[in-house]
Amino acid sequence: MIRKIRRLAKVINKSSTRKKYYHQPGTAPGTIIVDENSQHPHIILIDYNQINLVHQEIIHPEDCSQYLDTESVSWVDVQGLGNRDILERLGQVFELHPLVLEDVVNMAERPKSEDYEDQLLIIARMVTPTHINEGFHSEQVSFVLGKHYLLTVQEEPEYDCFEGVRMRISKSKGIIRKQGSDYLAYALLDAVIDGFFPVLEIYGERIEELEEEVITNPTPQTLQKIYRIRRELLQLRRAIWPQRNVINSLIRDSSEIISDEVRIYLRDCYDHSIQVIDMVETYRELASGLMDVYLSAVSNKMNEIMKFLTVVSSIFIPLTFLAGIYGMNFNPEKSPFNMPELNAYWGYPLCLGAMAVIAGGLIFFFWRRGWLSNSVKVKD
Amino acid sequence: MIRKIRRLAKVINKSSTRKKYYHQPGTAPGTIIVDENSQHPHIILIDYNQINLVHQEIIHPEDCSQYLDTESVSWVDVQGLGNRDILERLGQVFELHPLVLEDVVNMAERPKSEDYEDQLLIIARMVTPTHINEGFHSEQVSFVLGKHYLLTVQEEPEYDCFEGVRMRISKSKGIIRKQGSDYLAYALLDAVIDGFFPVLEIYGERIEELEEEVITNPTPQTLQKIYRIRRELLQLRRAIWPQRNVINSLIRDSSEIISDEVRIYLRDCYDHSIQVIDMVETYRELASGLMDVYLSAVSNKMNEIMKFLTVVSSIFIPLTFLAGIYGMNFNPEKSPFNMPELNAYWGYPLCLGAMAVIAGGLIFFFWRRGWLSNSVKVKD
Amino acid sequence: MIRKIRRLAKVINKSSTRKKYYHQPGTAPGTIIVDENSQHPHIILIDYNQINLVHQEIIHPEDCSQYLDTESVSWVDVQGLGNRDILERLGQVFELHPLVLEDVVNMAERPKSEDYEDQLLIIARMVTPTHINEGFHSEQVSFVLGKHYLLTVQEEPEYDCFEGVRMRISKSKGIIRKQGSDYLAYALLDAVIDGFFPVLEIYGERIEELEEEVITNPTPQTLQKIYRIRRELLQLRRAIWPQRNVINSLIRDSSEIISDEVRIYLRDCYDHSIQVIDMVETYRELASGLMDVYLSAVSNKMNEIMKFLTVVSSIFIPLTFLAGIYGMNFNPEKSPFNMPELNAYWGYPLCLGAMAVIAGGLIFFFWRRGWLSNSVKVKD
Amino acid sequence: MIRKIRRLAKVINKSSTRKKYYHQPGTAPGTIIVDENSQHPHIILIDYNQINLVHQEIIHPEDCSQYLDTESVSWVDVQGLGNRDILERLGQVFELHPLVLEDVVNMAERPKSEDYEDQLLIIARMVTPTHINEGFHSEQVSFVLGKHYLLTVQEEPEYDCFEGVRMRISKSKGIIRKQGSDYLAYALLDAVIDGFFPVLEIYGERIEELEEEVITNPTPQTLQKIYRIRRELLQLRRAIWPQRNVINSLIRDSSEIISDEVRIYLRDCYDHSIQVIDMVETYRELASGLMDVYLSAVSNKMNEIMKFLTVVSSIFIPLTFLAGIYGMNFNPEKSPFNMPELNAYWGYPLCLGAMAVIAGGLIFFFWRRGWLSNSVKVKD
Amino acid sequence: MIRKIRRLAKVINKSSTRKKYYHQPGTAPGTIIVDENSQHPHIILIDYNQINLVHQEIIHPEDCSQYLDTESVSWVDVQGLGNRDILERLGQVFELHPLVLEDVVNMAERPKSEDYEDQLLIIARMVTPTHINEGFHSEQVSFVLGKHYLLTVQEEPEYDCFEGVRMRISKSKGIIRKQGSDYLAYALLDAVIDGFFPVLEIYGERIEELEEEVITNPTPQTLQKIYRIRRELLQLRRAIWPQRNVINSLIRDSSEIISDEVRIYLRDCYDHSIQVIDMVETYRELASGLMDVYLSAVSNKMNEIMKFLTVVSSIFIPLTFLAGIYGMNFNPEKSPFNMPELNAYWGYPLCLGAMAVIAGGLIFFFWRRGWLSNSVKVKD
Repeated sequence: MIRKIRRLAKVINKSSTRKKYYHQPGTAPGTIIVDENSQHPHIILIDYNQINLVHQEIIHPEDCSQYLDTESVSWVDVQGLGNRDILERLGQVFELHPLVLEDVVNMAERPKSEDYEDQLLIIARMVTPTHINEGFHSEQVSFVLGKHYLLTVQEEPEYDCFEGVRMRISKSKGIIRKQGSDYLAYALLDAVIDGFFPVLEIYGERIEELEEEVITNPTPQTLQKIYRIRRELLQLRRAIWPQRNVINSLIRDSSEIISDEVRIYLRDCYDHSIQVIDMVETYRELASGLMDVYLSAVSNKMNEIMKFLTVVSSIFIPLTFLAGIYGMNFNPEKSPFNMPELNAYWGYPLCLGAMAVIAGGLIFFFWRRGWLSNSVKVKD
Repeated sequence: MIRKIRRLAKVINKSSTRKKYYHQPGTAPGTIIVDENSQHPHIILIDYNQINLVHQEIIHPEDCSQYLDTESVSWVDVQGLGNRDILERLGQVFELHPLVLEDVVNMAERPKSEDYEDQLLIIARMVTPTHINEGFHSEQVSFVLGKHYLLTVQEEPEYDCFEGVRMRISKSKGIIRKQGSDYLAYALLDAVIDGFFPVLEIYGERIEELEEEVITNPTPQTLQKIYRIRRELLQLRRAIWPQRNVINSLIRDSSEIISDEVRIYLRDCYDHSIQVIDMVETYRELASGLMDVYLSAVSNKMNEIMKFLTVVSSIFIPLTFLAGIYGMNFNPEKSPFNMPELNAYWGYPLCLGAMAVIAGGLIFFFWRRGWLSNSVKVKD
Repeated sequence: MIRKIRRLAKVINKSSTRKKYYHQPGTAPGTIIVDENSQHPHIILIDYNQINLVHQEIIHPEDCSQYLDTESVSWVDVQGLGNRDILERLGQVFELHPLVLEDVVNMAERPKSEDYEDQLLIIARMVTPTHINEGFHSEQVSFVLGKHYLLTVQEEPEYDCFEGVRMRISKSKGIIRKQGSDYLAYALLDAVIDGFFPVLEIYGERIEELEEEVITNPTPQTLQKIYRIRRELLQLRRAIWPQRNVINSLIRDSSEIISDEVRIYLRDCYDHSIQVIDMVETYRELASGLMDVYLSAVSNKMNEIMKFLTVVSSIFIPLTFLAGIYGMNFNPEKSPFNMPELNAYWGYPLCLGAMAVIAGGLIFFFWRRGWLSNSVKVKD
Repeated sequence: MIRKIRRLAKVINKSSTRKKYYHQPGTAPGTIIVDENSQHPHIILIDYNQINLVHQEIIHPEDCSQYLDTESVSWVDVQGLGNRDILERLGQVFELHPLVLEDVVNMAERPKSEDYEDQLLIIARMVTPTHINEGFHSEQVSFVLGKHYLLTVQEEPEYDCFEGVRMRISKSKGIIRKQGSDYLAYALLDAVIDGFFPVLEIYGERIEELEEEVITNPTPQTLQKIYRIRRELLQLRRAIWPQRNVINSLIRDSSEIISDEVRIYLRDCYDHSIQVIDMVETYRELASGLMDVYLSAVSNKMNEIMKFLTVVSSIFIPLTFLAGIYGMNFNPEKSPFNMPELNAYWGYPLCLGAMAVIAGGLIFFFWRRGWLSNSVKVKD
Repeated sequence: MIRKIRRLAKVINKSSTRKKYYHQPGTAPGTIIVDENSQHPHIILIDYNQINLVHQEIIHPEDCSQYLDTESVSWVDVQGLGNRDILERLGQVFELHPLVLEDVVNMAERPKSEDYEDQLLIIARMVTPTHINEGFHSEQVSFVLGKHYLLTVQEEPEYDCFEGVRMRISKSKGIIRKQGSDYLAYALLDAVIDGFFPVLEIYGERIEELEEEVITNPTPQTLQKIYRIRRELLQLRRAIWPQRNVINSLIRDSSEIISDEVRIYLRDCYDHSIQVIDMVETYRELASGLMDVYLSAVSNKMNEIMKFLTVVSSIFIPLTFLAGIYGMNFNPEKSPFNMPELNAYWGYPLCLGAMAVIAGGLIFFFWRRGWLSNSVKVKD
């Protein structure tokens, strides 16, 4: 059993997101730290307008420059952060402020948006269900939005919820090909927010399973599952709340890069983020309610065990005492008062009868108290 | 018992409102998803002014157009969402923005209001008691308010709290026939808010029943009922809070569609929504107080059981020991010190007497401690 | 015991204020519902200026009209709501807006103030101690304040905290006779707020009693009392919070009906309402702290019981085992190893001595652990 | 033990501050209620400027008048409230508004500040440690600040934290003699706020003691101490929060009586009040954390007791059963199957050996489970 | 064990930060209190511009004056507070307001910023990990920022997170040598904020260890560790929250000393402070969730112990009773009813068989209930 628990404990720890993603105190601002374990960056360029579409992988960051100033929308999607040189060259191509580059590369930033004159930096957090339906994959996506281009930077290529948007561009579905880079940024942000729903659905299911488990068969594992769900919902909460503020400030602040039309769409996206928050908070309340139910269920189980022990002990201890009485060796021959019952003609049957009466009385008493049944009993 | 609990667990799950009402992340905004299981839409038109009244079912959405621009108030009530074609044609007739149509059709929106120049979109949530007095039916109602018309969309025809308004129109009761479409929207919103009261009354009754149950006969089922009430009140809370904000923003924001006179009536409606919130929060506090009482009641029951076990064991264990002493087989013939009591003339009666004294002493001790009575005992 | 608890449960329920005081959803605004069980309205008119004073009961509401437009202050106090006709005629005499009349008659409104041009509607909630010192009587008082008149409507004549004000008018005590109707409204509102103090004093006493009870003698009844106090404080809280807002808005909003001088007095009244809130919140915290103490006290009691059982069992079970050993019937005659102790000269005394040593050792062990004493023991 | 607890319960009640300090509802505003038990007022006048200093006790309030209009600062300190006549005459000398006089005399006001044209009323609450280091003394101090005078009113002469200020005036320490009455008011307010620190230090010490007690030796008394600390911190909290608001409003509101220079000093005083709040809230959190630790410590103790009972019972009950078997009286002579062990040569030693093996096995089992040690055991 | 706990209790107390850092109530503002135990002040001057760099220790505070008015940035870092004379002379050199000097020297101030015309006072709190990985070192740093100079005052020289900044200055890394004193202040503040991350990382690790410990082996020590972590996180929280406000007000308030360019960098620093708050709050929630898990784990352990006791007792008590029956001494010779079993041919084997059947039945019953296994058991 210990081993089982250990394994569980490890799974819990694995789902931890605490990584050493901070600089040594006193480091100069703008310092880029590259995690050597992270993947080599792939740069995917999608350049489109209503008529044309270019979709290719870029090797040298400098190759992007030709697309950036044209009227067509250029979406440069960087996947992987394992090469400092490429990142710095990208920073030069897009003329990024050093603090922007640091924020984009540092993978533990809080969602936020910042306005750098003709660029808009948006840091978002994207969650995707894992394949094993345990926890979720959480990854930072940074957006640098310019007049005619959008730079997105994400950590791992395999987790991504942008596929739908790519398809809408390639198949020219909806109005996306008629709109500018701000609409593209909205579409991706919307995909990020909507990406919370499938993850939350899994939590909804897990909470329902736990509701049944906590009622029918509460075990120490149930407790760990509840704790783990609470912990993961706490992470989701930390991810979505600042995201809501980001979208809100995009709607309210008067950046020229975002058009009024796209602001209307962002309002819709804002509503979705509120809905995500609503669900996260509801699940958190349900999970902490489950903790109460669990504690009560454990108390009830203990009650049941104690009742059983009490019933068995209380019936047999007096009977054993009676048997002990007649197991004493007082000598009947020395005195007529010394255990004359032992020699009585009906001694033994009467003794057994007395025992039966006592046991019956106690059982009746317990039955009246409702200690004999586990199910509900209405007293009157 | 297990089976009973399972059944209960299912009822709890059934009352869950978690449905897959979200788009795949990355879907284009404005996409309409039609739930195939939902009912075919019925379109009921009520067109009235002070003098005339038309009340008929419409088959082709286009038939509405003739009524929309007249001075008379046209209320188009759509019940059921099972047909994409009709919904899209309705959207064209009313010239709805794609996002409005999506919101109206998507049945998991959060209550909100949005101002689209000459249309006002209001999303509300309507609750109605179910017939079996378990939980409640919750359904989205969308309002699209124009200058001379009101479009309402609801999910299921059988649950609805608009009957009173329909009757006021048909019987020309109150001032409704003299007022415009904004007053109609107010009247329906007011009916939606007032629809929370009967549902809350049921919860008030259930909490009172639980108060009695938790005191007189707490069982594991009680716990589940408390959890379930808390869960459902959480849903009610999620439904009413944003609704309050909707009404508040209708009062404050300066949309031209709503007249000042109707704003006064909306203030009344706002007061009612505050009252609903008040009741929901009070019931939530009472329910979570009940959880504390339940836990204490379970502890008290355990105390009672332990007291009984302790009293019985503590009386009989020493007596059994005494009986055990005189059941030993030390040979009195080998030594005058070996159990001379066994041969004593008064041995047996004295032994029984000692037992009675011990038992009496213990019973007195327990009585002093108050362990013998379950009812209240004042110590001094 | 069950019966006792039932009775208690009923008292709890009786103190519930949940009444069916809401309209059927869809009812026209302004609909008056008259509770047939409520008392027939008495109309008391007090008309006064610095010199004259009229104090009489009015039968026909129309008789009030002659007083309303004079410069003297006319206080029309309506007690009881059991007659629809009189209420509607009153509405006509005072030219009340239909929504005002509805609010005044509907006895479950939330305290609020509303400004209707030359009338000010104030809904307040008045609490008074009941005669049996259990719970409190809660009743709505509505004020309609005009330039020269004040209409007050209350539910039951016997509960009322306006007696002091009536006396100040009749005895011309203080400045009340020199002031206008706004000062009268302030004086009555102040009486309503001050009416919370005697009620709160009772709760202060009950909490102190419970503090003693929970420490010296916690019983299941104690738990119910705590729950009940929490429930009633919740009601008081619901009553006083919106009242504070009402007074605050009277001070800040620029209604012409209230003079600047009276606003200074209202500030005083506002301070009192804050003090009431302070006390309610403090009592609520104390009551919920009591719940913790109760739970711990129950745990401590269980600890005590378990300690007793453990001490008794642990001492006698080994001794009984020893007695059981020498109660075995191994035949000493068949083998020198078969229980030679039974025939030993000092067998029995040694056996008893061993038992005494074991018992003494265990008692010493328990004493060291501090399990023998209930009172405090300082370990070092 | 009961008696001990009673005594403790009384101490708790004694520290209660609930007194009947409110008017009968309906009383005219400005009514002064004099508590007959309170002390006769002493009036101390300190009149100073840079050069001169008058320090004397005043008998007739009217004697103050001559000092009030001079340029020198006049501090009139009233100690004790037991004489209505003197208080009313004071009110006339200082030309107090009736509501001001009522606030000053009513000793249960909430800290607040109010601006009466050329007077500023400040109500503060002063706490001082008691001599027995149990709880604290809490007393209202009222300030009426005029252009050239300051009237302070306090309840009891013996508790006071103004000694330092009096010495600064008499010894002309710091800049106090160069400043006006507003600086004096600041200096006294600052002394009131700083007076919270010694009280809080005592609570810091008591919490540390409780931390040790709750870990090494939790008793029911520990629980009461925690409850009492929470209760008293609640009182401190009620005293300091409104005080912070008072100082804040003194800094922000543009009363002419307070000069800009003194406002800078008040900012410092405001910082101190925030620090007091910080400490109170931290201690409250620690105290409620202690409650959790206490509950767990009690559970742990119960666990320990149960473990002991289980170990003892589980070892001896099976052995006793075995002894019981061989205490049966089946007749070996009637059948070769009837207890042949009793006549076996090695019967008794084998039986004892079996018992030893069973006991050893159980002890090993308990040792593996870690039930034999109270200290920490690392399982692998 | 007691001794172990005592030691632990001491460690907890040692980590307390409650020191007597307040003035006697009534003390004049601006009074400097020097803690005699604190270290003698070291004054380190770093004066730099793009070209030159002076780095030296200053003995007489007056020697600083020559550097203060030059265009180059002068950073005067005072370490240690043990000499009143030097501090007062420093105050004169920098022309500090008495209140500023008091704040700088008083080591228990709350983080804050204050604007004194051409000086900006910033009080911050710096935390550093201790060498033993237990708790953290917390120390106040005060900044007095002028046009061309920065005065920093810290308590102990050995704990400090400014090393990185000193190196950036000496090695002219980044833009620090090109910027003014405001950038230096930002760089140091940023180092202070970033200094929270290593401390928080240790807490992250400790919480993960506790998560495993609480699941696999909860002991009373675990409880103390949780309480201690909560207590220390409370301190961190008190340190970081006001710091965030300080940075925020530096960004928003229009002090001329801070340039717009540095404000952009402060925004970055603000984001980091939010991240620290986020982590502190998350760890606090996790720690309080751990408390719940701990309580449940203790309950589960108790359940396990009770189950064992119940199983053992319930099996052997009935068997012992049966053995007791046949240990009775009723005389078979006096009556055919008196225990004929004892003389039956199959008496003893049948009796043992009955015992085996009873034991087997009970074991089967317990197995069905799942009381025999500690691991998870799925019932169907």
